[in-house]
Amino acid sequence: MSASAAEIDHPSPQGPYSTTLRAGGFLFLAGQGALDPATGLPDTSSLDAEVRLTLGNIERLLHSEGYTLDHLVQVVCYLTNLEDWARMNEIYADVLGPRIRPTRTAIGVSSLPFGLSVEMTCIAYREDAALTGSGASA
Amino acid sequence: MSASAAEIDHPSPQGPYSTTLRAGGFLFLAGQGALDPATGLPDTSSLDAEVRLTLGNIERLLHSEGYTLDHLVQVVCYLTNLEDWARMNEIYADVLGPRIRPTRTAIGVSSLPFGLSVEMTCIAYREDAALTGSGASA
Amino acid sequence: MSASAAEIDHPSPQGPYSTTLRAGGFLFLAGQGALDPATGLPDTSSLDAEVRLTLGNIERLLHSEGYTLDHLVQVVCYLTNLEDWARMNEIYADVLGPRIRPTRTAIGVSSLPFGLSVEMTCIAYREDAALTGSGASA
Repeated sequence: MSASAAEIDHPSPQGPYSTTLRAGGFLFLAGQGALDPATGLPDTSSLDAEVRLTLGNIERLLHSEGYTLDHLVQVVCYLTNLEDWARMNEIYADVLGPRIRPTRTAIGVSSLPFGLSVEMTCIAYREDAALTGSGASA
Repeated sequence: MSASAAEIDHPSPQGPYSTTLRAGGFLFLAGQGALDPATGLPDTSSLDAEVRLTLGNIERLLHSEGYTLDHLVQVVCYLTNLEDWARMNEIYADVLGPRIRPTRTAIGVSSLPFGLSVEMTCIAYREDAALTGSGASA
Repeated sequence: MSASAAEIDHPSPQGPYSTTLRAGGFLFLAGQGALDPATGLPDTSSLDAEVRLTLGNIERLLHSEGYTLDHLVQVVCYLTNLEDWARMNEIYADVLGPRIRPTRTAIGVSSLPFGLSVEMTCIAYREDAALTGSGASA
């Protein structure tokens, strides 16, 4: 892909993995955190910023494959400080809005790549995508 | 939903998420722990009680969507004390009985919401549910 | 199953779970680590050995169900020392080679069964397996 950094509007892989993969109507996303989608650099300046950027990256990846936040079915949230749970919930609910929300698991972990405080792993599903088969993002 | 607490026989969400979501025959469950399904209060009096109540809540959620323990395909167990692993296995095997058991992963984590020692995230599958499309629990 | 240890070429369950389960074209794998597939004993002599044996076990389980590394869609890597992340990526990329790689999440956890440093939970998908229904490994 020859796009410059300024043209990239969704996160790139930061290791040997695909950021998205489709399989039977499902879309699997690599774990997402508060990395600037253009530069790949982490922004851990505040929990609020982290949660919003993480969910923004998830939304950008969903859109890149024709999905939206409405299609999320499973989110696993990893937090390095579980006391961030209540505040994360507030921002998370604000970003997701009144739609039917995905199932979720939240756990406290020892550490996350790039010094992140939050990482989220997501699975989405579109019934009408089930006929399109599997594929990988660029 | 206007049911009183006494009428509720399966766990309610404790944050901004759905407790169950169906997608293409699969049923995704929010992470479950030893919270009383009627009151939402944690019961962490003993590991045995925690594991039994957690699996009871999982079964209640499965039943609320027309699934059973037979349909579980993936369970991820988060334990704050990994030395609980052997005892958890005993109770887990006792509750599940002789059926074909789901795949499982067990890991030791730093902390869990509500002071829980155990949390489990589950995916179930019914082949005959694959035609019914996706949906959300109340 | 009456096979002797020497005849077993893929990992056995180390607890009350199935090592693989098929569901709607998907194959769910139990969490895998560096356990010798014949003896079940852990080999934690080096990170390199652990990652290679873990991925070897994953490949053996995939093959036992008619899948390959090409069919992986989601990998969650649990590491007890997140500083192993960069080296794990090197070995992981070497083993997977130039194929389209699965999505991935890596997190640092407190502890893993059997004193492992690495554990991986995988989901695979074969479009042409979607018609074969669900089933369990021996």
